[in-house]
Amino acid sequence: MTTRQHIEVDLNSDMGEGFGRYRMGDDDAILNIVTSANIACGLHAGDPEIMARTFAMAKERGVAVGAHPGFPDVWGFGRRVIPFSIGEIERLIAYQIGAAEALARYAGHRVTYVKAHGALGNMTQTDEDVAMAIARAIKAVNPELICMTFSGAVMERVCRDMGLRVRSEVFADRAYDEEGHLLSRKSPGAVLHDAGQAAARMLRMIQAGAIETVSGRMLKVPIDTICVHSDTPGAIDMAARVRATLEQAGISVKAFS
Amino acid sequence: MTTRQHIEVDLNSDMGEGFGRYRMGDDDAILNIVTSANIACGLHAGDPEIMARTFAMAKERGVAVGAHPGFPDVWGFGRRVIPFSIGEIERLIAYQIGAAEALARYAGHRVTYVKAHGALGNMTQTDEDVAMAIARAIKAVNPELICMTFSGAVMERVCRDMGLRVRSEVFADRAYDEEGHLLSRKSPGAVLHDAGQAAARMLRMIQAGAIETVSGRMLKVPIDTICVHSDTPGAIDMAARVRATLEQAGISVKAFS
Amino acid sequence: MTTRQHIEVDLNSDMGEGFGRYRMGDDDAILNIVTSANIACGLHAGDPEIMARTFAMAKERGVAVGAHPGFPDVWGFGRRVIPFSIGEIERLIAYQIGAAEALARYAGHRVTYVKAHGALGNMTQTDEDVAMAIARAIKAVNPELICMTFSGAVMERVCRDMGLRVRSEVFADRAYDEEGHLLSRKSPGAVLHDAGQAAARMLRMIQAGAIETVSGRMLKVPIDTICVHSDTPGAIDMAARVRATLEQAGISVKAFS
Amino acid sequence: MTTRQHIEVDLNSDMGEGFGRYRMGDDDAILNIVTSANIACGLHAGDPEIMARTFAMAKERGVAVGAHPGFPDVWGFGRRVIPFSIGEIERLIAYQIGAAEALARYAGHRVTYVKAHGALGNMTQTDEDVAMAIARAIKAVNPELICMTFSGAVMERVCRDMGLRVRSEVFADRAYDEEGHLLSRKSPGAVLHDAGQAAARMLRMIQAGAIETVSGRMLKVPIDTICVHSDTPGAIDMAARVRATLEQAGISVKAFS
Repeated sequence: MTTRQHIEVDLNSDMGEGFGRYRMGDDDAILNIVTSANIACGLHAGDPEIMARTFAMAKERGVAVGAHPGFPDVWGFGRRVIPFSIGEIERLIAYQIGAAEALARYAGHRVTYVKAHGALGNMTQTDEDVAMAIARAIKAVNPELICMTFSGAVMERVCRDMGLRVRSEVFADRAYDEEGHLLSRKSPGAVLHDAGQAAARMLRMIQAGAIETVSGRMLKVPIDTICVHSDTPGAIDMAARVRATLEQAGISVKAFS
Repeated sequence: MTTRQHIEVDLNSDMGEGFGRYRMGDDDAILNIVTSANIACGLHAGDPEIMARTFAMAKERGVAVGAHPGFPDVWGFGRRVIPFSIGEIERLIAYQIGAAEALARYAGHRVTYVKAHGALGNMTQTDEDVAMAIARAIKAVNPELICMTFSGAVMERVCRDMGLRVRSEVFADRAYDEEGHLLSRKSPGAVLHDAGQAAARMLRMIQAGAIETVSGRMLKVPIDTICVHSDTPGAIDMAARVRATLEQAGISVKAFS
Repeated sequence: MTTRQHIEVDLNSDMGEGFGRYRMGDDDAILNIVTSANIACGLHAGDPEIMARTFAMAKERGVAVGAHPGFPDVWGFGRRVIPFSIGEIERLIAYQIGAAEALARYAGHRVTYVKAHGALGNMTQTDEDVAMAIARAIKAVNPELICMTFSGAVMERVCRDMGLRVRSEVFADRAYDEEGHLLSRKSPGAVLHDAGQAAARMLRMIQAGAIETVSGRMLKVPIDTICVHSDTPGAIDMAARVRATLEQAGISVKAFS
Repeated sequence: MTTRQHIEVDLNSDMGEGFGRYRMGDDDAILNIVTSANIACGLHAGDPEIMARTFAMAKERGVAVGAHPGFPDVWGFGRRVIPFSIGEIERLIAYQIGAAEALARYAGHRVTYVKAHGALGNMTQTDEDVAMAIARAIKAVNPELICMTFSGAVMERVCRDMGLRVRSEVFADRAYDEEGHLLSRKSPGAVLHDAGQAAARMLRMIQAGAIETVSGRMLKVPIDTICVHSDTPGAIDMAARVRATLEQAGISVKAFS
């Protein structure tokens, strides 16, 4: 992946998160910045129209695409832990990957990775059972797919154990605690708002191959991709600033797939 | 397919049409009778749990499986024409085929055909635009899939024109008008209730390679499969009687895939 | 309500729990047995058609009706704890009561009580915050409505504190632990299957004005109504047997409203 | 209502049309301009949280509120004709009015009128059966409620025949054909974009008590309220301009309820 000599990093963003006539985030703007697009699969957000259109837009701009499955919970936007069993999670993920692969193919593109959304994604940091359910779903549907997860998540090890390729991400706008986990959104300082600071921090993290905690400690972890957002003008600016800062430092911003 | 010398015919039924804790039809019983199972894909009925379980049951009993996509309309069970555009129908079908293929793979089985459900299926009899939308969706997602449609439907020609394999079905319990179309359910005599009569009629139709109309005329059409139902004890009995009657006459009942 | 001299008790059952073409339970049969019908409000089960029809059937047979709100979760049939905030639960309940009152009025009937469904109902046994949310919703929408809850639940006290009328229920087919709480469905013996035993136990409980625990202890609690089910032929038989046993012992089975 | 001497008119807007985390329109801005708010009832848009909040905001600003029921179709935002029967429409409307009344009461406000949304609203212009279904639902749930409909709609007569109060609306941004019906959105010039022109036209229409057609003809019809939108900055500006123009001409802008 990343090498000391010439560093490469992917830039990813959640996308296609509208539903019917509702919109969330500025997909058009963010697609000009990122190298990978995580496409919602219709259960927490997205619908076949939005999926096909977003896959087509990504294809047109040369952006890699991943399936971005979540809990079936449009109301909660996939950010709530809905009490499904481990087996049910497995089938929910398989369903969504299949739907995404089909619509990507329909749009002339190809899904190359899977990234769990929201509450489900958060669970893969520490919940081995959920991580294994997702890994099993990926293996069953298409073992060629890469699993994108959080740098330092238990999911990383689960994927390696199960023979799945894995790529790890850090968040441009989220602070990390001393264990390298995301600081809860409810904690002060959990979300970075200054684009310049966020970009500078990302550069330090990518160059060091390490997560920078709130206290400034650097924790060595794999970092293959940076997650940025598109739901406010400020988020778009931050994404652009992160990319520009990395490229000015000689880092290649490109999809890993 | 069917030959004068040795006639073969498939027996199919809609299945996996529950939702959450709701059930519809006796899948366990009908799976012992049919050779092909049309599995609902989660938008008009079915959910990932039911899909995975039904694919697994079909695999276990050696029954072929098809994706059975419909309008996203659990309320109306896919039997209402929901005003989607042709393009939207195309994406809805692609989504559902993909989801079904993934869960079939997950369950160790393989989708070999697609049959549109309910109102959408009915439209393929005469609506060329809808037929083409479904054909395009199949081609885009997996051109190896066979399209199952009504004997005499416009969909037959559309598939041939587009290079898709097609198999045609007649209904064990539905009467046909003089054009070879299904008599509307509202017409008297539209639905056959006597298992013996239905089975004898099916035998005549399969042996003749023709649809028998209400007046007794025989219309030559391709007949590759017979659709039976499972939603009442009477329907299960009729399905069993149809199968037994055909086999006693030396006709092989087997999946076409 | 209940007196030593002449004992009265209500018999209630959940009803109208279908959705679209799906059905759950035999409403027609159970309506001939119970004196109160808890009508699902469209979010965990039920829809406007089923609601109106069930209210009309109850009216016709002189059966009292209650709103039976639950979590918005058709998939899980309202039996899963969906992570809504206390305030959100309050608004969800208000919404459903209003919808039920309107459709009861439409059908010429009148909602006289509210009983929370499934996971939400279970929470009112011990969760004071949820109990208060439900009580506040009832008060805001219609303070004349009676709150039906479990005998011994924290909801009883909450209602009294807030000036709401409350009626308490026991379950004909469920065993009680030594604290008077329902034994978990996962415990052996949690569900009674013998109609005769269940009816005899109910008679003992109503005559004693006490819950009978699995060890045979009697815990004095208010008992105003007995919950019976309709989802299997066995459940219908048990409900009929409970009613007959009570009436043979001189107990009046009638709605409390 | 309106008199030659001192003219009064209401200004209404659809509101509360988000769902979960999705938003549609700037409710906060438009609530400072209008005198009546049509609140979505959860089936085509809106949810209990959004409803309660929007009712509370309207109460706080002294804005009257109406139930704004539509087809159960979040995907299509209530703008598609979903094939429900007349009886089903009746129950759907009753359900939504009840839910809205409950949440208004919960928020300390009171629903005073009903206005059908989107495709359902459009049908009340000419479809007498649909108009009667809506009128029957209103009468059954709360006959005190006013029915808001299009100026010149068949619904006006239906309401009068059934003894319901009715108030009629024109659209600030929509052109009218020579019959006084809305020009289809697909026709050129169907939607006015210039705030000044729209405001001047509204002033002419209110002063004349007549709809101005695309050719400039004036058709005498009742006009009690003007519908404005909030979904773009331009729409908010137009609404403010309409209100200012009317008030500068001495017309009172106030709720009719």
